[in-house]
Amino acid sequence: MDKVYTNTMKLIEKLDMKDSQTISFHHHLREGDRVMATVLKALHDSGLRDLTLCSTSIMNCHDFLVDYIKDGTITGLETSGLRGELGHFISDGGMDHPVIIRSHGSRARAISDGERTVDVAFIAASKADELGNATGMIGQNAFGSLGYGIWEARNAKKTVVVTDDLSSKVLDHISISQSETDAVLVVEQIGTTEKIKSGALRIKSDPLTMRIAENTVRFLIHCGIDLNKKAIQMGSGGISLQTMNNLTAYLDEKDIRFKFAVGGVTSHLTHLLEAGFIEALMDVQSFDPDCAISLMNNRKHHEVDVNTYANPLNPGNLVNSLDIAILSALEIDLDWNVNVITGSDGIFRGAVGGHQDVAEGSDLTIVVAPLIRGRIPILTDKVNTLVTKGKEVDVFISEYGIAVKENHESILHSLNDSGIKTLQLRELYDKTVKYVGIPTKPEYRDKTVAIVQDRYGNTLTEIKQLTR
Amino acid sequence: MDKVYTNTMKLIEKLDMKDSQTISFHHHLREGDRVMATVLKALHDSGLRDLTLCSTSIMNCHDFLVDYIKDGTITGLETSGLRGELGHFISDGGMDHPVIIRSHGSRARAISDGERTVDVAFIAASKADELGNATGMIGQNAFGSLGYGIWEARNAKKTVVVTDDLSSKVLDHISISQSETDAVLVVEQIGTTEKIKSGALRIKSDPLTMRIAENTVRFLIHCGIDLNKKAIQMGSGGISLQTMNNLTAYLDEKDIRFKFAVGGVTSHLTHLLEAGFIEALMDVQSFDPDCAISLMNNRKHHEVDVNTYANPLNPGNLVNSLDIAILSALEIDLDWNVNVITGSDGIFRGAVGGHQDVAEGSDLTIVVAPLIRGRIPILTDKVNTLVTKGKEVDVFISEYGIAVKENHESILHSLNDSGIKTLQLRELYDKTVKYVGIPTKPEYRDKTVAIVQDRYGNTLTEIKQLTR
Repeated sequence: MDKVYTNTMKLIEKLDMKDSQTISFHHHLREGDRVMATVLKALHDSGLRDLTLCSTSIMNCHDFLVDYIKDGTITGLETSGLRGELGHFISDGGMDHPVIIRSHGSRARAISDGERTVDVAFIAASKADELGNATGMIGQNAFGSLGYGIWEARNAKKTVVVTDDLSSKVLDHISISQSETDAVLVVEQIGTTEKIKSGALRIKSDPLTMRIAENTVRFLIHCGIDLNKKAIQMGSGGISLQTMNNLTAYLDEKDIRFKFAVGGVTSHLTHLLEAGFIEALMDVQSFDPDCAISLMNNRKHHEVDVNTYANPLNPGNLVNSLDIAILSALEIDLDWNVNVITGSDGIFRGAVGGHQDVAEGSDLTIVVAPLIRGRIPILTDKVNTLVTKGKEVDVFISEYGIAVKENHESILHSLNDSGIKTLQLRELYDKTVKYVGIPTKPEYRDKTVAIVQDRYGNTLTEIKQLTR
Repeated sequence: MDKVYTNTMKLIEKLDMKDSQTISFHHHLREGDRVMATVLKALHDSGLRDLTLCSTSIMNCHDFLVDYIKDGTITGLETSGLRGELGHFISDGGMDHPVIIRSHGSRARAISDGERTVDVAFIAASKADELGNATGMIGQNAFGSLGYGIWEARNAKKTVVVTDDLSSKVLDHISISQSETDAVLVVEQIGTTEKIKSGALRIKSDPLTMRIAENTVRFLIHCGIDLNKKAIQMGSGGISLQTMNNLTAYLDEKDIRFKFAVGGVTSHLTHLLEAGFIEALMDVQSFDPDCAISLMNNRKHHEVDVNTYANPLNPGNLVNSLDIAILSALEIDLDWNVNVITGSDGIFRGAVGGHQDVAEGSDLTIVVAPLIRGRIPILTDKVNTLVTKGKEVDVFISEYGIAVKENHESILHSLNDSGIKTLQLRELYDKTVKYVGIPTKPEYRDKTVAIVQDRYGNTLTEIKQLTR
């Protein structure tokens, strides 16, 4: 029981934390997370200042961070995503130091190559034992894969497992070994798992989504690539989910089995696994608490850490083995560049996630998005924020049709032979201009509020403070 | 399929190996291993010289190493165990450089703290997939836990998984992730799993063993320690196995459940797990191929890597949580020092294994051994080779009785109250002298043939060349 703490303040004392240290969190609990709030309150109350908060992502439920930034508890922020009130606050120049924005793979790299040292990682776990073994697959708030947490725990100087379900017996499943765990903090509630499955992750059936999904299915069937035994990442956006849904009949008819599917996992994917359409499911993040049951019971459903998923310095990573990936976009431009972190208004409202990683790793990268979303053009002349370089994108599929990069001659031929008309990006762009005009671009001040890194840690884009 | 090789020579070329590099192996296949022979033949044939061979242990089946040492292919040797022809060869000064002998925990430490860098780890796996995921739990030659291999793979500069069962599908169980694997070498046969269960690991029922086991059971029942919820390592020697066997009725009667059992795992332990006498089995090495079935199917049977098992620099290691451990000895002396690496004749015929680790980590360390084995005294005035310091040993149990260190007053009282007479080590020693006389000590030359390290990498004992 040496490792177990029920008093957060006592734990902080024991950890001997100092001002200016770096703390980390994972975002497996998504909008249901309460661990960051609990820990930060204690760190704040213990008088720590100038902390760098390094989370694998930040959700709307973390808006409270604004207060800790204002009062100097937090002066550094590193994340894959930024949104909500905090997003506005950062866009408006609320922080002195630029936020560092990394993809999941780049984050895995940064903590493995030493660019980012984490002093204390606070790892939410749905169950832990007294020895320090931890998992997200069992317990009252089981949330599934601990893919981000595993890599944080392995690399942080100190690892604190935070759980609301402490077991006196050794766990039946161990995701993070006791050998990585310095302390176990028992809290009342790590979060509310029903909030894991937030808006973006539900299947949608509005006409716009249905239209794009239909085009994507047509593309996949007629692009001339034999889908059998291919490795895929389908994404967890509404369009991707609907695409997979509509593709099932074809997979069944042609007896197609994907070699593996990777990435954020929904119960749609676990059902495809059960039905035999996917041979193995590699789960770095479960977008549905039900995935925990599948992870525990289905041997073809594997928990993989984010290093295995997407660290570009790891030659054996899964994204490098991808044949086909479907990705979303907040903006895509005439050079095929993609923005998934700021809206057309320039305000933070998204996350890099695995976008850069998957786009670079996958042989064929398909971006699916509407041309226009609520009178806002998604296809634009130039993205406000470059996140994924155009050279990594091969296909753009919208409600108005399919654009394929010129070098993909065989795909273009196959589509043509099947009677599917493809369009130039420029033609699609002209359509958006016709419908909604040329949008006003956001205006910026000089101050850099965030830096988007590429996978390897280079500065890809400096995001400036908005003028508004 | 980029990682997969079927031609060993082509793989070696691809690995770009150099003279004087360090290669490593694990010994999960014990006397059935054929991987080391296959790889070394290829390394030899490719003309590599001056290699350091760093194996988690070396068995009798590795006697062929003598030839590779003689011809200069191998000039450095690091291992936990040494026996057979190779043992004689080393004892007789056959190598220029001293062999480095480390416990399993010390080996885990040495590759994690940088004392030992491994250039290429060759990891036998009973099944691997094309992505490089590997396991010992499934496949035609399933051998169980890959506890040593996992840590080798994680720390070596390059990792080659060697298998005789390549899967085109992602494995149903992943012990070593593709992210650790640089190449997969497919060979005809990794070994013969029936030879895993070698002599020392079978339950014995000769009168000597029965007598010591009986004394050990009496000790455990009457030493005053409540066994319920205790963490134990029982060892895999014949005496330990018989002890556990004889203890079962008592465990059942008193409704005792061990919190966990750790170490090398036999099917005796998996049966105790199934019967509910052990709450969790932490398996760093399976001494019985049947354990693979239990590992795959019993959620309370966990594969643990050797870092988690015994790395002394890892505060969360399992041996540190042990309450009671039963260990064997080739020699024990009047200062409670134990030798498990050389016989009374000074020749290498054993292995440190986890002895130092468990003795230091466990609250109560019991050494079980006959006073005399085949007219050779085991209890002696001074061990030929110090492996585990006397200060880590608490109890010695032989066929003639039980000796308990004086500082364990409460244990001594409890035994006394139960009518169990304890003896001084000196009294037992006098008995051995009475029966077999004072043995002739081996004589040594000046040359150091091996260095036994302590857990932390300090030189504990220099073993000299034998005069004979």
